Amino acid sequence: MTVGTLVLLRHGESEWNAKNLFTGWVDVDLNAKGETEARRGGELLKEHGLLPDVVHTSVLRRAIRTSEIALHAADRHWIPVRRSWRLNERHYGALQGKNKKETLDAYGEEQFMLWRRSYDVPPPAIADDDEWSQVADPRYATLPDELKPRTECLKDVLIRALPYWYDQIVPDLLTGRTVLVAAHGNSLRAVVKHLDGISDEAIAKLNIPTGIPLRYDLDADLKPVRAGGEYLDPDAAKEAAAAVANQGR
Amino acid sequence: MTVGTLVLLRHGESEWNAKNLFTGWVDVDLNAKGETEARRGGELLKEHGLLPDVVHTSVLRRAIRTSEIALHAADRHWIPVRRSWRLNERHYGALQGKNKKETLDAYGEEQFMLWRRSYDVPPPAIADDDEWSQVADPRYATLPDELKPRTECLKDVLIRALPYWYDQIVPDLLTGRTVLVAAHGNSLRAVVKHLDGISDEAIAKLNIPTGIPLRYDLDADLKPVRAGGEYLDPDAAKEAAAAVANQGR
Repeated sequence: MTVGTLVLLRHGESEWNAKNLFTGWVDVDLNAKGETEARRGGELLKEHGLLPDVVHTSVLRRAIRTSEIALHAADRHWIPVRRSWRLNERHYGALQGKNKKETLDAYGEEQFMLWRRSYDVPPPAIADDDEWSQVADPRYATLPDELKPRTECLKDVLIRALPYWYDQIVPDLLTGRTVLVAAHGNSLRAVVKHLDGISDEAIAKLNIPTGIPLRYDLDADLKPVRAGGEYLDPDAAKEAAAAVANQGR
Repeated sequence: MTVGTLVLLRHGESEWNAKNLFTGWVDVDLNAKGETEARRGGELLKEHGLLPDVVHTSVLRRAIRTSEIALHAADRHWIPVRRSWRLNERHYGALQGKNKKETLDAYGEEQFMLWRRSYDVPPPAIADDDEWSQVADPRYATLPDELKPRTECLKDVLIRALPYWYDQIVPDLLTGRTVLVAAHGNSLRAVVKHLDGISDEAIAKLNIPTGIPLRYDLDADLKPVRAGGEYLDPDAAKEAAAAVANQGR
């Protein structure tokens, strides 16, 4: 029996995606293509009658704007909103602000893919005085210093996202709600890894496409009724996932 | 001593303001001018260093979008969001969807001003099968029928807004936060009437301009340190208030 429905939505193209830069916690905006993707995501929700009762986002602008644009397009702009740094993109450490192609050329394929796709190898830590550090950002002012990441691997993201999953998202699902989570490539991969019980090795190959809602119906044990969920536009999802895998080339 | 700071922001011009129609609970969008007003409101917040820690909005699109646009402009898009129907615009009853000028011509100056500005005379109730009724709107589905207004006077707005003021906004203020309330001409007039202790008669003449943040510093008794608060752009506020008073002419 389905108790709740989870809808995952990865933000569309940002100003830095288009420039091929590592973004992480840097708070860049969507570009025009990303806005269009968000609108299309909202239209898909509406067309499928998959209407969120509550939305959870990261505290990063590209996920927040994606949720706003998508919910306006679905006429669900008025639902309750929750935000948490625990849904943020992976902190990319010292790679934040760096060009992906240049990083690939400088460090080589093996190191590059290890940083991008390994489960437990984080990039080098970012210095607190780096222009792309977020230690002084007011939105993290209430976090004790030891909780502010200077770099993260996917495992770190999963560990910091899970408390929010258990304490804030699961209770919404257990009341039978349709819950939209508008977030990022890696925070959503962490959620999917947890939900589908994907191994540390297999998660490396999983890419979540941007702007296409991914629906999971969950049973009373919070297990997916259908492993891997269902994209509202499966063909577009397949194409987009392939494009993400080729980033940096 | 100031404990908390309240910032009131009335949404900018909507598609129906521009057409001179009574709007009430009809969920129309901002037009381009309204978007510009919202952006300017956010820029004023940033210029004055008046940075909201939390935002409360109605469940109507024009207030929600005003808050979103203003907060992005102020780089405060990541703060917690609260919404309530109790901050909605006054329900305009059977006048919703009607042209203001035509209503003025049909009913005469006295009746028109009574509906628009009297404290306790509501317009005729809207029929549940009227195309501009909101009884079936999903965002009010959890409200018992007796709580769904079919028309409201300003007194009704104050009575339904106060529980939200006391239970949701005051606790934020008492923790010393800067609280943004993005709402509507009449729900904000209700808040101001309560805060400044304005009489039932005097409130008729009070107009709140659109898009210009109105700041109230509140003491420990939740009384304004300065009666009437302070507009972040006082000259523009004066001009705009005069323009509102002439609506329907």
